[in-house]
Amino acid sequence: MLTPVEFRDAHVRILDQRRLPQEEVWLKIGSVEELSRAIETLSVRGAPAIGIAAAYGCALAARQAGAVGPARALAAVRAAAERLARTRPTAVNLFWALERMRKRAEQIAAAGGDLAMDLLREAEQIHAEDRAACEEIGRRGAELLPQEGGVLTHCNAGALATGGFGTALGVIRAAVAAGKRIHVYADETRPLLQGARLTAWELLQDGIPVTLICDNMAAHLMRLGRIQACVVGADRIARNGDTANKIGTYGVAVLARHHNIPILVAAPWSTVDMALPDGSRIPIEERDGQEVRSFQGSMCAPPAVPVVNPAFDVTPASLIQAIVTERGVARAPDLAGDLQRLSAKNLDNPGGIS
Amino acid sequence: MLTPVEFRDAHVRILDQRRLPQEEVWLKIGSVEELSRAIETLSVRGAPAIGIAAAYGCALAARQAGAVGPARALAAVRAAAERLARTRPTAVNLFWALERMRKRAEQIAAAGGDLAMDLLREAEQIHAEDRAACEEIGRRGAELLPQEGGVLTHCNAGALATGGFGTALGVIRAAVAAGKRIHVYADETRPLLQGARLTAWELLQDGIPVTLICDNMAAHLMRLGRIQACVVGADRIARNGDTANKIGTYGVAVLARHHNIPILVAAPWSTVDMALPDGSRIPIEERDGQEVRSFQGSMCAPPAVPVVNPAFDVTPASLIQAIVTERGVARAPDLAGDLQRLSAKNLDNPGGIS
Repeated sequence: MLTPVEFRDAHVRILDQRRLPQEEVWLKIGSVEELSRAIETLSVRGAPAIGIAAAYGCALAARQAGAVGPARALAAVRAAAERLARTRPTAVNLFWALERMRKRAEQIAAAGGDLAMDLLREAEQIHAEDRAACEEIGRRGAELLPQEGGVLTHCNAGALATGGFGTALGVIRAAVAAGKRIHVYADETRPLLQGARLTAWELLQDGIPVTLICDNMAAHLMRLGRIQACVVGADRIARNGDTANKIGTYGVAVLARHHNIPILVAAPWSTVDMALPDGSRIPIEERDGQEVRSFQGSMCAPPAVPVVNPAFDVTPASLIQAIVTERGVARAPDLAGDLQRLSAKNLDNPGGIS
Repeated sequence: MLTPVEFRDAHVRILDQRRLPQEEVWLKIGSVEELSRAIETLSVRGAPAIGIAAAYGCALAARQAGAVGPARALAAVRAAAERLARTRPTAVNLFWALERMRKRAEQIAAAGGDLAMDLLREAEQIHAEDRAACEEIGRRGAELLPQEGGVLTHCNAGALATGGFGTALGVIRAAVAAGKRIHVYADETRPLLQGARLTAWELLQDGIPVTLICDNMAAHLMRLGRIQACVVGADRIARNGDTANKIGTYGVAVLARHHNIPILVAAPWSTVDMALPDGSRIPIEERDGQEVRSFQGSMCAPPAVPVVNPAFDVTPASLIQAIVTERGVARAPDLAGDLQRLSAKNLDNPGGIS
């Protein structure tokens, strides 16, 4: 199964998503600083994939500092976590993974364990859990898609954004595997074109029918009756269900509501930030204006024109039909209540809300 | 005043809008076929500007055929009109201008006039009327903008799209000239980036505050309260007020309605097609998918991915607050009634609906 990040030969290896679909180039990353820059420049992106990459970064730091003793290794892990936490502010999976790695490192150190080996195992565990979560999200979400029809997705919430399989694209993959006749409409997703470059590439590889559109064409296709559902990923979900995702998702949600089309959010539970009461507290990353003024080195606007370039927006819970996680599905009109119940769920005793 | 098209030295001269803002290159066009290709490839674009260019094309045909006698010249004008009518299907101004030139050519021929000279005068008259219409639209539309605030526009309905001054940008120019403190948000307008390349360029030249955004950011800015009105142009307006304009306009209108923001359509009366009962009959041009798969000549999607690329969409009258023409303003909730009254208006006796 395609995975955008792995740990091999003492390096974090990342499929460079800036160069897809033209080239499949794997970066061999040997330092936390290098990894941090790979996250900042979006060689690896997607909330779950960033979390996994950061976890491997902590393991890398432990391994490199291991020779100088366990105390120094623990300090190196803490420093790595601090540096990695400064890469991108919006996706919560990053902070969740770093916190889990930091706590685990302290446990291992206190128990006199092998920090390098045990932290790598923890990172691999995070990775494996994410893959399993995506498959479970896929199963649960696929039931909510129509037997046949057009499904709009925005940005890339696919295998490339996760440990593999994908969240939004995982739902689509599972629906197709279950025999549903789905035609995907992929928003190209300006400014960085993750839909055109990554989602189109993933779906073509899987042989799932896909049509690429510019972001501003979705409304027209909805009006023509070509879209029966929307499925998107998430970078952070507040406990009331407000959802931060790639810029443009909020617009898709408004358009979907106007046309009575359901919108599903698909994300692992690690994306849910139960500490945040609502979406107004989610920090929105503002990126360099050159991303809007140019593409692949070619200017497409006057260099002097001011630009705003928020990387994310927040979709209020009131516009979302369902949030699909591996723990279960939170449904409108009580997303908040369902998230609360899923949060309290005993994971060794599955059942309850599905 | 900036005009994107003119007739000089026996040629139609066109400011090549494919090369803006990087270069200001004037094409010197010596044949109807060359002009038709310039329209098809969008070296000149914008509904009113296309109409003006086509009118000059008829004058060019008459001039070139004049030496072989008036009957051949009239035939050449008819052939020119037929070729030019096949360039682009959606904007009605093209057909309006060609019909006016054809009829005028027949009158001139019947009266034994100088077809070359008189048709050039007619084309110049169409050009001058469009400029005057834009200024009147500007005055009428400016009154409808708030004293202060953010105004979203989509695509380029500026001087470059008209005989000069612009329709949507004419409204903004007139509002700024009247002392209103307007900050423009310009949608970049994929796939061909007329907002980034042309609207940003025009407004920077005029010193009007402008911020460039990707199309998918408009909803987020509306939610943040940064946009108080939307102003767009039109390519064809049916008699019930349904309006075809650049793809993405319909989405802007849905978003504006969700946020209780008014949307104004600014267009010369020649854009109103009273023969069409509603927007469902407006032919929508579908352009080459490579425009979506690539970004300024650089591929940004897998070459094999299917694409849809409608150049326009239709905004239903129910989402439009006002249609501003030089004859007067049609207002919700009775756009159709107002358009009917404006259609019947005695133009020598201005007044009535304003």
